Amino acid sequence: MSSVPPSLCPPIRTLMGPGPSDIHPQVLEAMSRSTVGHLDPFYLEIMDQLQQMLRDLFQTSNAMTFAVSATGSAGMEATIVNLVEPGDKVLVCVNGVFGMRMTDVAGRAGAEVVTIERPWGEVFTAEEVQQAVEKHQPKFIGIVMAETSTGASQPIEEISKTVHDAGALLIVDAVTSLGGMPVEVDRWNIDAIYSGSQKCLSCPPGLSPVSFSHRAVDVILNRRTKVQSWYLDLTMLANYWGSDRVYHHTAPINMSYGLHEAVRLILAEGLENCFARHRQNHLALKVGLAAIDIHYAAQEGHQLPMLNAVRVPTGVDDAAVRSTLLNRFGIEIGAGLGAFKGKVWRIGLMGYGARPENVLLFLSALEQLLGEQGYSFEAGASIAAANAVYSS
Amino acid sequence: MSSVPPSLCPPIRTLMGPGPSDIHPQVLEAMSRSTVGHLDPFYLEIMDQLQQMLRDLFQTSNAMTFAVSATGSAGMEATIVNLVEPGDKVLVCVNGVFGMRMTDVAGRAGAEVVTIERPWGEVFTAEEVQQAVEKHQPKFIGIVMAETSTGASQPIEEISKTVHDAGALLIVDAVTSLGGMPVEVDRWNIDAIYSGSQKCLSCPPGLSPVSFSHRAVDVILNRRTKVQSWYLDLTMLANYWGSDRVYHHTAPINMSYGLHEAVRLILAEGLENCFARHRQNHLALKVGLAAIDIHYAAQEGHQLPMLNAVRVPTGVDDAAVRSTLLNRFGIEIGAGLGAFKGKVWRIGLMGYGARPENVLLFLSALEQLLGEQGYSFEAGASIAAANAVYSS
Repeated sequence: MSSVPPSLCPPIRTLMGPGPSDIHPQVLEAMSRSTVGHLDPFYLEIMDQLQQMLRDLFQTSNAMTFAVSATGSAGMEATIVNLVEPGDKVLVCVNGVFGMRMTDVAGRAGAEVVTIERPWGEVFTAEEVQQAVEKHQPKFIGIVMAETSTGASQPIEEISKTVHDAGALLIVDAVTSLGGMPVEVDRWNIDAIYSGSQKCLSCPPGLSPVSFSHRAVDVILNRRTKVQSWYLDLTMLANYWGSDRVYHHTAPINMSYGLHEAVRLILAEGLENCFARHRQNHLALKVGLAAIDIHYAAQEGHQLPMLNAVRVPTGVDDAAVRSTLLNRFGIEIGAGLGAFKGKVWRIGLMGYGARPENVLLFLSALEQLLGEQGYSFEAGASIAAANAVYSS
Repeated sequence: MSSVPPSLCPPIRTLMGPGPSDIHPQVLEAMSRSTVGHLDPFYLEIMDQLQQMLRDLFQTSNAMTFAVSATGSAGMEATIVNLVEPGDKVLVCVNGVFGMRMTDVAGRAGAEVVTIERPWGEVFTAEEVQQAVEKHQPKFIGIVMAETSTGASQPIEEISKTVHDAGALLIVDAVTSLGGMPVEVDRWNIDAIYSGSQKCLSCPPGLSPVSFSHRAVDVILNRRTKVQSWYLDLTMLANYWGSDRVYHHTAPINMSYGLHEAVRLILAEGLENCFARHRQNHLALKVGLAAIDIHYAAQEGHQLPMLNAVRVPTGVDDAAVRSTLLNRFGIEIGAGLGAFKGKVWRIGLMGYGARPENVLLFLSALEQLLGEQGYSFEAGASIAAANAVYSS
């Protein structure tokens, strides 16, 4: 038996990485409210409210809309293992880590996976997807809307038309996009979509909102084989979230409290206001960084507002800047992954973290560290440029 | 767009059902502490501490000991899908809902599942298991230590010897037992074990502690096929929990805070003290109920301290008692499941809920309701009997 550690005492961080994002204080507080049972009438009402709020957030009337009881990657897995049966052909569009993850998950579900690829930071055109769909005739097309590894923003609407014209179904990864930019499930005809609680929803990680169109539900209801995952079996989950309230697993009550409060705050702010806030803070960060000659890794015109992947300037020590930001200021930003390892910083402006306070603090602190590293720039220029955006 | 609901305001419950249990106030408070990143040096240290505390709780030195980022049922699934490959023979001992669930999960993993059964409320002898092992020659034997649906306590140690003599591996469901009674992974030679945060650990649901022996790890490392679940792939999870810290999914930070505090409180109390507390409160409840002629559903000598399944007295309205307990006193107890539906109440005395306050409140309230239902008993007898236990 080892000695028992003291109660944990977390440092206060400003979370500007790829997620978890800064959590709204009301969300943290909501998570500590009194736990009730998973079949308590109060909790069932909270589930109903949460479902309806998630529909509003996804801009959908899909009945099968709820939160999977695990993180965003489990939402990806739930989506794929419920739709895909062994031998089904799945086309995955890969331009970063999360497209690669989707191919791995689909392969484990027994899919015949084909991929199309774009260099990291670029996005797919509808024509590219159309050609691949015509060539491979897949049953499903999977695509990441906001590639967290590259900061690239993938247009969905036109691709959706292409996919449906070919009689296929569209699976969209909205882990990083939901709550920070328009995600219009019904208008864009998305068949299956999953997200995570810890990005633009500003709730701690642990839940994955999902939604399925009636076409996707038909596919699920007409499977020839049992879903390989019991925990993620959507028809069983739907019986718990639906009016039957059939016990499946014990829902993570206090995580649901947090998500309820988080989505509530977004809807109370208004989706359009929330998206505009993300855009404004992204713009301030972008012109601020440009003023000190730091530039985005993702294709111009396709840069995410909530995940700013920027190239580490030549001669600057990537790891030293990140660790000093953390140790001196408590600011977390993300390192590059995969092809971008050591080459980019990933700066999150997600949900509650998409605030002028975070942008100005980050730019000020970054100028301090870049100056110490001997990087040449006009001192104060990033702040002046960012402030001009806020004051315009 | 619907109207936005107000911030949730949970009623205060006394959770005496099959879980979630009453949460210790310090655990709820810990969950609301400041979120840090999942690769923050502080969080990595908390993970190390949590791993070591879970080893102490499981009474094991198993390196592969950590918490799966989802509820107890996902721990069951993680255990099975990582060990079992398609075609492997798995013998499951079924005497309640959770044994049945294990057969379902193993079947979905492609196992050839064989079962032995006992009536609900009874347990298996080592001889029965031995005969089945000799007959079927399974690679794995799965058994539930504390059947939450029946309140039956399954002895493990002797069965473990039988299983290993036959060269098989033993999988144990400790969702309800861990933290409330001895679970000695090393001494009993358990190969794979999983639990849940929301029973005797008195943390909200959302995490599943697991532990694997070196024999189980060898099986996992020598698989011929990829694990069907990406989210629950233990070798990937071990690379995140281990010294490599390879990013897998975004860990549920604040849930981990809660579990850290919950396990810390148990170890600070001392395992033996904690188990003795569970036994004493169970005994007080049991003699209290006996004094008003209410009796246990599980086999005498094999009754769990933390989950007391008792027969609903003849003539008493099961559902009315449960809903009145909830509405008048805020007390939640569990209904019967499956074969026990409408026939038993399941009264949890788990973790922080295993307190004289809960026992006395429950017995007092129950007497009130039974009296109103015209059930004949000596008024006050249950409290007198329970108090005698506490005062002895």
